[in-house]
Amino acid sequence: MKKLINDVSNVLTESLDGFVAAHSDIITLGAEHKFVQRKVLKPGKVALLSGGGSGHEPLHAGFVGHGMLDAACPGQVFTSPTPDQMIAAAEAVDTGAGVLFIVKNYEGDIMNFDMAREMAGRNIETVITDDDVAVENSLYTTGRRGVAGTLVVEKVVGAAAEQGADLKRLKALGDKVNRATRSMGVALTSCTVPAAGKPTFDIGPTEMEMGVGIHGEPGRRRVALRNANEIAEEMVAAIAGDLNVKGNALLFVNGFGGTPAMELYLMYNAAVAQLAKHAITPVRALVGSYVTSLDMAGCSITVTMLDDEITRGWDAPVHTPALRWGL
Amino acid sequence: MKKLINDVSNVLTESLDGFVAAHSDIITLGAEHKFVQRKVLKPGKVALLSGGGSGHEPLHAGFVGHGMLDAACPGQVFTSPTPDQMIAAAEAVDTGAGVLFIVKNYEGDIMNFDMAREMAGRNIETVITDDDVAVENSLYTTGRRGVAGTLVVEKVVGAAAEQGADLKRLKALGDKVNRATRSMGVALTSCTVPAAGKPTFDIGPTEMEMGVGIHGEPGRRRVALRNANEIAEEMVAAIAGDLNVKGNALLFVNGFGGTPAMELYLMYNAAVAQLAKHAITPVRALVGSYVTSLDMAGCSITVTMLDDEITRGWDAPVHTPALRWGL
Repeated sequence: MKKLINDVSNVLTESLDGFVAAHSDIITLGAEHKFVQRKVLKPGKVALLSGGGSGHEPLHAGFVGHGMLDAACPGQVFTSPTPDQMIAAAEAVDTGAGVLFIVKNYEGDIMNFDMAREMAGRNIETVITDDDVAVENSLYTTGRRGVAGTLVVEKVVGAAAEQGADLKRLKALGDKVNRATRSMGVALTSCTVPAAGKPTFDIGPTEMEMGVGIHGEPGRRRVALRNANEIAEEMVAAIAGDLNVKGNALLFVNGFGGTPAMELYLMYNAAVAQLAKHAITPVRALVGSYVTSLDMAGCSITVTMLDDEITRGWDAPVHTPALRWGL
Repeated sequence: MKKLINDVSNVLTESLDGFVAAHSDIITLGAEHKFVQRKVLKPGKVALLSGGGSGHEPLHAGFVGHGMLDAACPGQVFTSPTPDQMIAAAEAVDTGAGVLFIVKNYEGDIMNFDMAREMAGRNIETVITDDDVAVENSLYTTGRRGVAGTLVVEKVVGAAAEQGADLKRLKALGDKVNRATRSMGVALTSCTVPAAGKPTFDIGPTEMEMGVGIHGEPGRRRVALRNANEIAEEMVAAIAGDLNVKGNALLFVNGFGGTPAMELYLMYNAAVAQLAKHAITPVRALVGSYVTSLDMAGCSITVTMLDDEITRGWDAPVHTPALRWGL
C-alpha cells in the first residue's frame, strides 16, 4: 500500500487536523474530532448537517461554510459516523430554527442518523439522497445509493437555508433536488482502504466496473475497457432514460480521487455530446474530484435538471473549503 | 494503460474542448486549440501569458481569468508549446501595455518562449520560475526546475497586473515572488503518458522517488517508502534550508493527480509541524491538485515567504476555472 500517511489508525484525525488548519477562516473542529462546523453561525437559520464515512473528501466537511452545510460528521473510512457525533454536532449548530439532516442512502448512515434524530430531542427533518441509477439495491443499500448528487442537494438547499427558508420548506426542496438528480459511476481501478492495506476488489488490466459505488462496491457488471465516448454513452443513457425529461441541466463530472483533471474534462466533453442525443443541455457545469473513493481511478456523471429555483440555489454565493463562488 | 480517453492523439484537444465548454463564462479557445484566453480582456492592462506541456492541469489554462493569466498555451503532453502558439496568444491578448511571459524553467519552454519573444515584435518581458530545490540540473533543465510555485507567481503577479502595475514592475514582482518560493516533490507511483501507453519510470511497491520532477523525471534519489512525517521532514528541511529565513508563509500542498484530498490534508498537517522547527508559520494555505503530473501519486510542498505585497497579491480577488475567491 502506497499512501501518504503515518499510522493507519490516525489517518482520519491527522487529515482532519490538517483540513481545519488549512481552512481555519471558515471552519472549526468539534471536540474529539466528532464534527466539523461552520465558524460563524447565523442565528435563526435552519442548520444543515450531513456526514458519512470518510474517504469521500471533500464530501462532506469540504462543504461546510456559508451557503452550504453548518456541520459535517466524519465516520472512519467508509464507516458511518455514530449517533453521538450527530447529536453533538446538532447541539453545536442548532440556533433554534431546527436541523436538516442530509443523508446518503446507506443502511448504516440511515440507521445512525435516525437514532440521532430520535435521541437529540430537537426539531429535525431528514433528506435522503439516492441518485445512483446503476443498481436498485446493493451491498450496503436497500434502494438506490446516494452518491455525487448529494453535493447538488447540499448546495441548493444550503442556499435556501442561507436565505431564510424554514425547515419544512428545506425538506421539500431537498427531496425535489434529489428527484431531479441522477448519477452513475465507472471504476478503472480499485480503491485501497488504509486499514485493509490492499485493494478492495480485484480488477484486471483490461477491465472496468460499470456502475461502481463510491466504496468500490460492485456496479452493474464488469466489462472490458472501453473508450471515453462509449463509457459516457452508457452512463448518460442510463441517467437520461431514468430522468425521462428534456431541458436544461447541471452536468457534474466527478473524479473518484485517482483521476486527473485532463481526463475529467475529456469525459465532460464526451458527456455533453451524449446528452444532446437526449435533448438535455448543460447550462451549468462542475468538473473535479468532489465525491471520491480514496484513490480509486474513475469518475461519475451526475445530471440535475434545472428549474428557476434550483438554478438560483446553484448560482447563489458559497464559501466553503471545496466550493467557493460569489463571495 | 487505464485512462478515460478516446484516441491517444486527440487527448489534448478533446480535453480542451471539455474545459472550454465547462468554463465558457470565463474563457474562450483560440483557433486550432493554440491557446486559451480570458473571455473579457481589460484594456490597458499588461497581458500575462503562460504555457507549457499539458498533463499538469489545471496549470496553466485553469488559471486564466480575472486576477491571474490572460492566456495560456498548452503543448502536447509534457512537450513545450510552439512559438507560433505564443505569438498568436500574445496577439490576441495584448491591449497595448505589453505582455509578460511566465515560463517554468525547462529548456524547451525557455527556447520557444524566447523565440516567440523575438519574433512577436511586441513589448515582452519574461519571468522564469525555478522553485524546485530538489536538484540543481536535471533531465530537461539547466538550473532548477520550475514547478508548483509557478502558481504562486501567476497569482501574485496577476493581482498586480489587474490593479494596473506596468510591465517593468510586474517583471520585478514576478522575480521577487519566485525568489521567495521553494518547492520539493515526492512520487509514490509513476505517471503514464497516453501516447507512450506505459509508466514513465519503474518504481517498486516499497519505493518512492524523493525530489521527483513534474514529468516523472528523477529527483534526488530512490528511497524505501517512508511515512508522511518523515517525508514532510526531508522536504521541509530542504525548502527551509534553502530559503534560510523565518517568518510568515504561504504553505501549498500540491497533489500530482493520483493522490486524494485526505492524504494531501494529512501532509499539510505534517508540513505545518515541520515548518515550526524552522520558525516558519503558515498564515495562508492552499491544498489540492493544481500542478499535476497526469495520474502520478505523490505530492509537492511549496513554501512562499510572505511580505505585505505578496500577501495582498495572494488575497486579491481571482476568478479562474481552478482558483476562485473574492468574486
